[in-house]
Amino acid sequence: MRNTALIMAGGRGERFWPKSRRELPKQFLSLTDDGKTMIQLTVERILPLVEMDDIYIVTNKDYKHLVREQLPEIPEENILCEPVGRNTAPCIGLGAIHIMKKYNDAVMYVLPSDHLIKFNNMFLASLKDAREVAIQGDNLVTLGITPDHPETGYGYIKIGKSAAENRAYLVERFVEKPSLEVAKEYLATEEYLWNSGMFVWKVSTILMNIQKHMPNMYQNLMRIQAAIGTEEEEAVLNREFSSMESQSIDYGIMEKAGNIYILPGTFGWDDVGSWLAVGRIKKTNESGNVVNGNIITIGTHNCIIQGDKKLIATVGIEDLIIVDTDDATLICAKDSAGDIKKVLENLKICNRDEYI
Amino acid sequence: MRNTALIMAGGRGERFWPKSRRELPKQFLSLTDDGKTMIQLTVERILPLVEMDDIYIVTNKDYKHLVREQLPEIPEENILCEPVGRNTAPCIGLGAIHIMKKYNDAVMYVLPSDHLIKFNNMFLASLKDAREVAIQGDNLVTLGITPDHPETGYGYIKIGKSAAENRAYLVERFVEKPSLEVAKEYLATEEYLWNSGMFVWKVSTILMNIQKHMPNMYQNLMRIQAAIGTEEEEAVLNREFSSMESQSIDYGIMEKAGNIYILPGTFGWDDVGSWLAVGRIKKTNESGNVVNGNIITIGTHNCIIQGDKKLIATVGIEDLIIVDTDDATLICAKDSAGDIKKVLENLKICNRDEYI
Repeated sequence: MRNTALIMAGGRGERFWPKSRRELPKQFLSLTDDGKTMIQLTVERILPLVEMDDIYIVTNKDYKHLVREQLPEIPEENILCEPVGRNTAPCIGLGAIHIMKKYNDAVMYVLPSDHLIKFNNMFLASLKDAREVAIQGDNLVTLGITPDHPETGYGYIKIGKSAAENRAYLVERFVEKPSLEVAKEYLATEEYLWNSGMFVWKVSTILMNIQKHMPNMYQNLMRIQAAIGTEEEEAVLNREFSSMESQSIDYGIMEKAGNIYILPGTFGWDDVGSWLAVGRIKKTNESGNVVNGNIITIGTHNCIIQGDKKLIATVGIEDLIIVDTDDATLICAKDSAGDIKKVLENLKICNRDEYI
Repeated sequence: MRNTALIMAGGRGERFWPKSRRELPKQFLSLTDDGKTMIQLTVERILPLVEMDDIYIVTNKDYKHLVREQLPEIPEENILCEPVGRNTAPCIGLGAIHIMKKYNDAVMYVLPSDHLIKFNNMFLASLKDAREVAIQGDNLVTLGITPDHPETGYGYIKIGKSAAENRAYLVERFVEKPSLEVAKEYLATEEYLWNSGMFVWKVSTILMNIQKHMPNMYQNLMRIQAAIGTEEEEAVLNREFSSMESQSIDYGIMEKAGNIYILPGTFGWDDVGSWLAVGRIKKTNESGNVVNGNIITIGTHNCIIQGDKKLIATVGIEDLIIVDTDDATLICAKDSAGDIKKVLENLKICNRDEYI
């Protein structure tokens, strides 16, 4: 059965402000030392398994030009534009009907466009294992990450009994982001994995599950599918997509369906959730600083400094995130990275849209 | 006897980098809330005592245009340009011969151009008292500041016995910047004042003392004086001034001469020695921040943030100095302000003169 990939690239993340903006979200930024953007790395990573023509990108219409610029090899008809953001369930549904239209059925790798993976070969091996589980029956497979610390920023998945012939486990339940105490328990039991938001299934399987658990959305999708290639395609998409419920695939399908399997992965996954991730990803110098740009550091330790052409001089500081762009500079304590969104709230209140 | 003032404005201070540059030193910056530059405030302060035509500015030739721009009321012939910097003794000598040439003798208030004074009326009263002491005999008078904390950044002056008829004390000795321990002792004895670098004397008195204690420099000065108004004036100035020894008036004259009096002052003096001074001078908001420019602060305390047009957003930080200019941004811990000079050393080593 043919392999296809759906890359979800509609996010408007605020956590990389001031580099990420409404007009340039994280998936289109380069945050690694190789200069490639997150979405370019995502496509590159999957190419050994999926042909370029079978890679689909679902994004917001505002970002179509960014996808075309950064991924000129992707066929234009594979760039699917959401008229509005409706979370992951409608996004995946839209991809599924396009793939169904082209191939009737296929294996579908569903991948976020803004995560990093360190060990690509191990990742590809996990995808292949997941494919086996997905095509053996009408199974929904999710990739879980074996936790190495009690992270409170991720959802967890409790694993049930192991399937007989492969490394997959039945999923017992999905749990929301835990408190530190609960996260420590999860880690100790060895029965919980991080929810990576990456999925493998047949197009027919996911559509069957959408029909069962999200019947309204299924009707919307069928109307969109019927219009593909017609003069009404855009009008129908706008109308039907906008009327869908905003819902995550986790909540809408995975937490309700049966036959959910999880494959534990240890391929160096990072969701790159904040500027702190850049400290993990990029090369650190002997003072513990991650430094890019035109920078002079004096007595500076464990800082993340992302500059540009302008000179940034730091003296006697530690544990700060400093990000300079043409029109805005952020200076943020590492342990306050979660409060960067308050800057954006402030800007919104003051109608200073030029900075958002 | 006529009152004249000599304002010393040749300094090339590095401690307000990146706002102060080789081409725009501290005395030409505005560091207060009223928008006036340090040298403008210095002139304004002395005007109740000295006529505008009797105010002399000694500066480096590179800064003449700044003096003319910022102080258009000062007669051009009163702007005296040092061909090279030679510390305060030659600077004061140059001013003295010009005033001598014009008035034969006069009272001369010698003032740095980059200090702040909070209580102008008390300051003027001190100058008047000092004038009395200066003209009673051939006395050299220095203004001392009554210390309110054991500052290690200033020189101290030990006072001797009080003069009979006024608030002046004979100077017992000048001492260099002390350690914290020694500064605490000085404070406890109540026999030491801070050396403010402000002086009052007759032109004839200081020239007599230069002749006695710095005879070579006196000869240089006499040759310069003879050439004033002639075609050779500039050539003679260049030659004679450059051949003078670089020397402070404290070391060259005050520590050697007799008849040195000191007047204790409590007029809210601040030498504005670093960015930390801006935290003392400017208005502080309810979070303890001194903020100017286009700034958003979230969870930010006791910071000095001097921005400009560009947005600066700070999150979860404290006790930092942040200064943004067109081409450079400084982020410095308050307790490391003394290390800003290391940034400049680094820039010099790397030949990055555009930032100096």
